[in-house]
Amino acid sequence: MRYDFGSDNTAGMAPAAIQALIEANDGYARAYGADDVTARAADQIRRRLDADAEIRFVFSGTAANAIALSMLAWPHEAVLAHHAAHVCTDETGAPGFFGQGVGLIGLPGFSGKIEPVALRAALDEPEVGHRQPPAALSLTQSTEYGTVYTEEELRHLIEPVKLKGYGVHLDGARLANAAAAGFDLTQIARLGVDILVFGGAKAGANCAEAIVMFDKTLARRVDNRLKQAGQTASKTRFLAAPFLGLLETNAWEDGAAHANLMAQRLADGVVAGTSFALAHPVEANAVFVRMPPRAHQRLNELGWACYRFDDGSVRFVCSWATQEEAVDELLAAMVTL
Amino acid sequence: MRYDFGSDNTAGMAPAAIQALIEANDGYARAYGADDVTARAADQIRRRLDADAEIRFVFSGTAANAIALSMLAWPHEAVLAHHAAHVCTDETGAPGFFGQGVGLIGLPGFSGKIEPVALRAALDEPEVGHRQPPAALSLTQSTEYGTVYTEEELRHLIEPVKLKGYGVHLDGARLANAAAAGFDLTQIARLGVDILVFGGAKAGANCAEAIVMFDKTLARRVDNRLKQAGQTASKTRFLAAPFLGLLETNAWEDGAAHANLMAQRLADGVVAGTSFALAHPVEANAVFVRMPPRAHQRLNELGWACYRFDDGSVRFVCSWATQEEAVDELLAAMVTL
Amino acid sequence: MRYDFGSDNTAGMAPAAIQALIEANDGYARAYGADDVTARAADQIRRRLDADAEIRFVFSGTAANAIALSMLAWPHEAVLAHHAAHVCTDETGAPGFFGQGVGLIGLPGFSGKIEPVALRAALDEPEVGHRQPPAALSLTQSTEYGTVYTEEELRHLIEPVKLKGYGVHLDGARLANAAAAGFDLTQIARLGVDILVFGGAKAGANCAEAIVMFDKTLARRVDNRLKQAGQTASKTRFLAAPFLGLLETNAWEDGAAHANLMAQRLADGVVAGTSFALAHPVEANAVFVRMPPRAHQRLNELGWACYRFDDGSVRFVCSWATQEEAVDELLAAMVTL
Amino acid sequence: MRYDFGSDNTAGMAPAAIQALIEANDGYARAYGADDVTARAADQIRRRLDADAEIRFVFSGTAANAIALSMLAWPHEAVLAHHAAHVCTDETGAPGFFGQGVGLIGLPGFSGKIEPVALRAALDEPEVGHRQPPAALSLTQSTEYGTVYTEEELRHLIEPVKLKGYGVHLDGARLANAAAAGFDLTQIARLGVDILVFGGAKAGANCAEAIVMFDKTLARRVDNRLKQAGQTASKTRFLAAPFLGLLETNAWEDGAAHANLMAQRLADGVVAGTSFALAHPVEANAVFVRMPPRAHQRLNELGWACYRFDDGSVRFVCSWATQEEAVDELLAAMVTL
Repeated sequence: MRYDFGSDNTAGMAPAAIQALIEANDGYARAYGADDVTARAADQIRRRLDADAEIRFVFSGTAANAIALSMLAWPHEAVLAHHAAHVCTDETGAPGFFGQGVGLIGLPGFSGKIEPVALRAALDEPEVGHRQPPAALSLTQSTEYGTVYTEEELRHLIEPVKLKGYGVHLDGARLANAAAAGFDLTQIARLGVDILVFGGAKAGANCAEAIVMFDKTLARRVDNRLKQAGQTASKTRFLAAPFLGLLETNAWEDGAAHANLMAQRLADGVVAGTSFALAHPVEANAVFVRMPPRAHQRLNELGWACYRFDDGSVRFVCSWATQEEAVDELLAAMVTL
Repeated sequence: MRYDFGSDNTAGMAPAAIQALIEANDGYARAYGADDVTARAADQIRRRLDADAEIRFVFSGTAANAIALSMLAWPHEAVLAHHAAHVCTDETGAPGFFGQGVGLIGLPGFSGKIEPVALRAALDEPEVGHRQPPAALSLTQSTEYGTVYTEEELRHLIEPVKLKGYGVHLDGARLANAAAAGFDLTQIARLGVDILVFGGAKAGANCAEAIVMFDKTLARRVDNRLKQAGQTASKTRFLAAPFLGLLETNAWEDGAAHANLMAQRLADGVVAGTSFALAHPVEANAVFVRMPPRAHQRLNELGWACYRFDDGSVRFVCSWATQEEAVDELLAAMVTL
Repeated sequence: MRYDFGSDNTAGMAPAAIQALIEANDGYARAYGADDVTARAADQIRRRLDADAEIRFVFSGTAANAIALSMLAWPHEAVLAHHAAHVCTDETGAPGFFGQGVGLIGLPGFSGKIEPVALRAALDEPEVGHRQPPAALSLTQSTEYGTVYTEEELRHLIEPVKLKGYGVHLDGARLANAAAAGFDLTQIARLGVDILVFGGAKAGANCAEAIVMFDKTLARRVDNRLKQAGQTASKTRFLAAPFLGLLETNAWEDGAAHANLMAQRLADGVVAGTSFALAHPVEANAVFVRMPPRAHQRLNELGWACYRFDDGSVRFVCSWATQEEAVDELLAAMVTL
Repeated sequence: MRYDFGSDNTAGMAPAAIQALIEANDGYARAYGADDVTARAADQIRRRLDADAEIRFVFSGTAANAIALSMLAWPHEAVLAHHAAHVCTDETGAPGFFGQGVGLIGLPGFSGKIEPVALRAALDEPEVGHRQPPAALSLTQSTEYGTVYTEEELRHLIEPVKLKGYGVHLDGARLANAAAAGFDLTQIARLGVDILVFGGAKAGANCAEAIVMFDKTLARRVDNRLKQAGQTASKTRFLAAPFLGLLETNAWEDGAAHANLMAQRLADGVVAGTSFALAHPVEANAVFVRMPPRAHQRLNELGWACYRFDDGSVRFVCSWATQEEAVDELLAAMVTL
């Protein structure tokens, strides 16, 4: 089976990431994040975001998101999110586990983007004691369906939430792909995001994500919080070094730009050369193809791992490692379906 | 500051670990633990233990222990453990977080080993509705104070617990050091341990531990459990490969044997050449020294990171990376105090 | 404002309930459920159900349901329930709170009854690590929309669930109304229900529900569980006595029969004398009326408390205390809308 | 067996409480706390305390305390309390359950009163990531060992806690007894307590306690919080009415004064007429007697329920219902031991 397009975490570490990890392995280093590599990686992220922020490196995007949401909403409150967001559909209820039952309110919207009218309706719901009222908004950039919010779109979603005094979380598992697609990272803090999960794994790191707290009051005793939640690395340098390598060399952006380009090549090929239609605009590194079950199954049989999503389309994801030849081979296989 | 003896997680990955990681980085691999490297690493562990078991690789010993305990005790129950065990003192209440309030009952005993009489007394306590009765025993091998249980000692602790129908967890963060000290790993399953945390980080891996479930009923839906708890690696090969490298080359044992030897050298030096006394028998890789606060502070000022423990002694830990010269330099520094 | 039809918990205690409470108030009694009144009330319930079971009296149906579900599903699993069930919509996420994030999978079906095809489809979903797979079914009798399952209907829902080895919970907040409508209580245990919440508050008790555990393995250390969850009454006789009074005098059934009769009278009147349609079959004590927002608002202005439900209809609930005259006055008011 | 002195919750409701409950039972009332009786009972409490506060009536002191603590401390933080406080020893770990693992740090002190030096030492502990640092102080008035803090003593405990910016909780399960012993209730808010649990059950109510939030920011969405936690009474009047009856007639204070008087009579009798010594000063309604196990057992055999505490002494508790004759009979029995 070929895993080229199954997910963006079937690729290994990008060269810059593993190189930095190897270098960071020399000698002793203070444990629990007090080392130099960790400090430098955090600086790189702050520079990208052009903002001051408390930053911690953790192992898992699932945990990073769930912990972030638990900072923004009590168990008797809820978080607004696109109904297809990763926190809603792919994290085995982690927000409820870390947040002790915190609710999720799924919102509709095309291609993974929250519909502003639906958001406002949810914000305007009268509060009653027997339901979990919203306390925060969770956004995803780029979205679960491979689209990229514009700043203007984000502003329309964030503003009414902040007016209510609620918090904003941004799941940036594929933030590099959004950046490569033109999204200006320096706007994240300015738009009012309180906590960002700055993605590493899908951008070519090992399993490593950074929790970025623009609202520093959220960071109070965050080291205790992360330790209790099993997200404190004793050898933090092994989380931070791949980040540092990717960011110092711009491989974080370059790899994402390559992934986006490959996705575009794949999308173009699907439209031009197959009988299948695209299910969503291709703006980042994922291509969703409307494909009958038989065709999907046949593709799997031909050796291509790919998965059907809740909207019924089949997803193909590109990464820093995706090769042009693989795209073309996949397209060739699609033609035969 | 020199971190040679501050902890066994200030060292990097051992050569066999990072080498295996580099090799595992090639090409695509199935995500979420379905890859070949992960399967082979699990086989290596089963072979060491001479037992069938479900095995999963996770990021954090804190999480591994807490999740294991949450499998063995309900929130309204408690876990018996040495009062100085890592789960009781150094994990920021993680058992209560993952176990939704599960209790810990701290037991006494010299040098980190649970006193059997105290254990039996706790097991014999009449149950009342307003207290959390015990449901499991948590052991640590080697112990928090650097000692190693004999099989006979473990049998005396485990038997009455199993007779009650309770579960047994073994925290093996430093299991390699126990093995290097002569503890027979194949006895773990036979003694009745239900879940073992097989340590990687302190044995020369990156942040990686293996949860070993001898009682396979505990493993039901464990992948869902770990995913929800933020302990599922998308790129599992990066957790499993360092293990594989250490185990295939026996570096797991050899590194621990070296660490134990260095600890013995240090202990011998302390006894022979300084005015300080050892606080606990030195049976694995840690040396606890009775040292007045002034001497401890002076040692820190001389550049040696080391920490005072709850029993008042100062801990020095050796690892696969500890060098003879460093031991001798430390001893030379101690003489001047 | 008149609260006659707003809910079945706007009525007070039925005479038999408060009389028994007054009698139980005499003298001293053992605390925490070890008193005689509590034992006799539990016997009354077992007799009704013709089954052996462990029984505990608690304060709140929300807690009773949530605790029951936490016995049947782990946090990384989910409970199947009608999407309009009380546990899904009206308990502020209590199942997730008591069950540390346990999921709820909402199923469709007319008038509050789960559609068997949808249930089977949910049971047949392939399990994946990143979702919460079902571990239990939660049923409601009578349902949230005032209908009553037949034994046959329940059998079709319960059988495939039990075949999977999953548990079954029955929310009986309005079980008395189902019984008065002809549902045979002795079938509950035989059908395979594992835990029943036997309703008191809506049947004329104070705030009191009974947790009935047919599967006694679930009852292990249940007193510790309830104490920890804040559901242990120190003065248990005040929870048990109203139950005892209702059950010894058959007021539990008689009051429900009266409530059902009044609901029927109201439904007949709506059909015969108003322009409004019934939204659901009236089989127990609730009447759901399709009514435009203006009419609903006008009815509120005329002094009648009543609430709009998620299906858009307006609910009117009768209780043991509902008077014929009140029904007729309400109908007269409806005619003027 | 006679339960006169086993606990102060073996007595029934005081006449004023049950009378008010009977009166409140008439007719319909808005559910979920929006009724008139509830409003009046809250007013009575505010008047007693001479302070503005949000007040909610709940079923259980265990839940009330645990929920209060969960408002003041995160799961990765801890609450400071006397090691013998009810929250530490008698609530089956409820603080950890409601607070998702929140820690408890037990402090020493004679006769249930926290030793100020120990408190300051705990507050001065350096914070480290792997422990749960304190975030709140929990006090008990009157204490678990029947003593009553003076205002001056409370001030010395509360001041350093508030200086740190931490919260203060007061468990007032026996606040009536403290008030009857001369403690000025109007000082509670002035001393800086943030949340008070105002006791009902032990003062002659049914199972009912009031959560009093002086710091109103804590009350944000408290109705959702309580509903989710299973502590919202649909028929709230049955929680509030007994309170109202007790407070409007001063039976709350009078009953407690009587209980204290009976305890004093018992204590005097023990000192004057038996060979046993008192274990703690008798300042409220509990008498702790140093008594060998044989004597305790014999007393039980003679029909007197009484329990041994963790300090080794045997507790006798008086309530509003305790009769002089019973005290004298108990004393007569003690003489024979």
